Amino acid sequence: MHQTFDAALGLNLLHVNQDGADHNREHFDQWGITCLNLMSSPGAGKTVLLEKTLAALQGQLTMAVIEGDMTTELDADRLRQYGSPVIAINTGRSCHLDAKMVAGGIHRFKEDYNPSEFDLVFVENVGNLVCPAEFEVGEHAKVALLSVTEGEDKPLKYPIMFQEADCLLITKTDLIPHLDLDLEKLTTNVRSMNPHVTIIPVSAKTGEGLETWFHWVKSQVKVPATTSI
Amino acid sequence: MHQTFDAALGLNLLHVNQDGADHNREHFDQWGITCLNLMSSPGAGKTVLLEKTLAALQGQLTMAVIEGDMTTELDADRLRQYGSPVIAINTGRSCHLDAKMVAGGIHRFKEDYNPSEFDLVFVENVGNLVCPAEFEVGEHAKVALLSVTEGEDKPLKYPIMFQEADCLLITKTDLIPHLDLDLEKLTTNVRSMNPHVTIIPVSAKTGEGLETWFHWVKSQVKVPATTSI
Repeated sequence: MHQTFDAALGLNLLHVNQDGADHNREHFDQWGITCLNLMSSPGAGKTVLLEKTLAALQGQLTMAVIEGDMTTELDADRLRQYGSPVIAINTGRSCHLDAKMVAGGIHRFKEDYNPSEFDLVFVENVGNLVCPAEFEVGEHAKVALLSVTEGEDKPLKYPIMFQEADCLLITKTDLIPHLDLDLEKLTTNVRSMNPHVTIIPVSAKTGEGLETWFHWVKSQVKVPATTSI
Repeated sequence: MHQTFDAALGLNLLHVNQDGADHNREHFDQWGITCLNLMSSPGAGKTVLLEKTLAALQGQLTMAVIEGDMTTELDADRLRQYGSPVIAINTGRSCHLDAKMVAGGIHRFKEDYNPSEFDLVFVENVGNLVCPAEFEVGEHAKVALLSVTEGEDKPLKYPIMFQEADCLLITKTDLIPHLDLDLEKLTTNVRSMNPHVTIIPVSAKTGEGLETWFHWVKSQVKVPATTSI
């Protein structure tokens, strides 16, 4: 559910959401948790990336996932096999997670776990290259994924996601030999939107780039907090 | 720009949009135009499908395109090479075309052309598997595209698009040998959402399925109208 253009109402909604996101982030900060918000088109590989990441960083970091989907717990169930808590949020007809939904997820998480024992919370957003980019949820960094199959023009056509991203994963690089993709042009297009974004080409199939991604994830994690709520 | 969940406001917006869509459709009907609304995730292949379709059906049908993109006229410029009128609509921050935007496109189209001379208008929606499914624009049929790279679970996770579609094109079938895709499971998942949808697997690269698609398009075209506005 989403409105047609109405500047006044739209700004108001974004302000309310921003307040909620700031509140979520305060909680994460007090618990010493880093929150990363993963966003992409459907099928770009967010869930498989999280599977690889949970498997690789188990034992090094204490992690949880807030998993957003319109319907089903298919992705949540895939991720639960890796031993980390996975809180599923079904958004119904909504095309993105907002701060209030994630606050609900944090609340459920707190019922069963001591958040201060966690280092890292991944938010997997609804598959959508447009709307999630506008709604902060309390994350410390935004991670966008773009599959090589989507084409090199997408940063120009869907600029907000690429402007907002702190890290961009170019996924499914194993498919490049079978595509008419100009990877250099893609990178140039990304840089024209966001000169400072970290770009990491990855393939969950061959493992290319995953170590670089894990290193980036670990570089985002905070020193444990000394304060408590 | 889009709202967080608000049932009353949301319903109102959808009602207003529906009235606009019905009005657009009345115009199309009076001109004897069939309107097809193409929707998919970014990069599923809407534009290349339209390129192939405009090229193949030139001389058989008089066609126009209303091309929706957040920014840029990249796709519109690609399509203009085929000789049919292409009206570009930039949606700005909006994640979908709505009836009012398409009405604006129709108005511009009328300034330069006699609509009664046209048989078919394609609307290429913003790349988004969620939001466009809820906003009719006056189309006679909805065409959804799903790339084989997006995975067989997508009909379950993004149900509205698959429930609404009259025709589903499964695109990029040439990539199937390089993927872990269960095409039968994908088809079963689609049918579980929408038992009656026409499913056409296609590859713009090899040409697979394109003749079937062209045939379906032609089957949608009306007998020329005798009334005028």
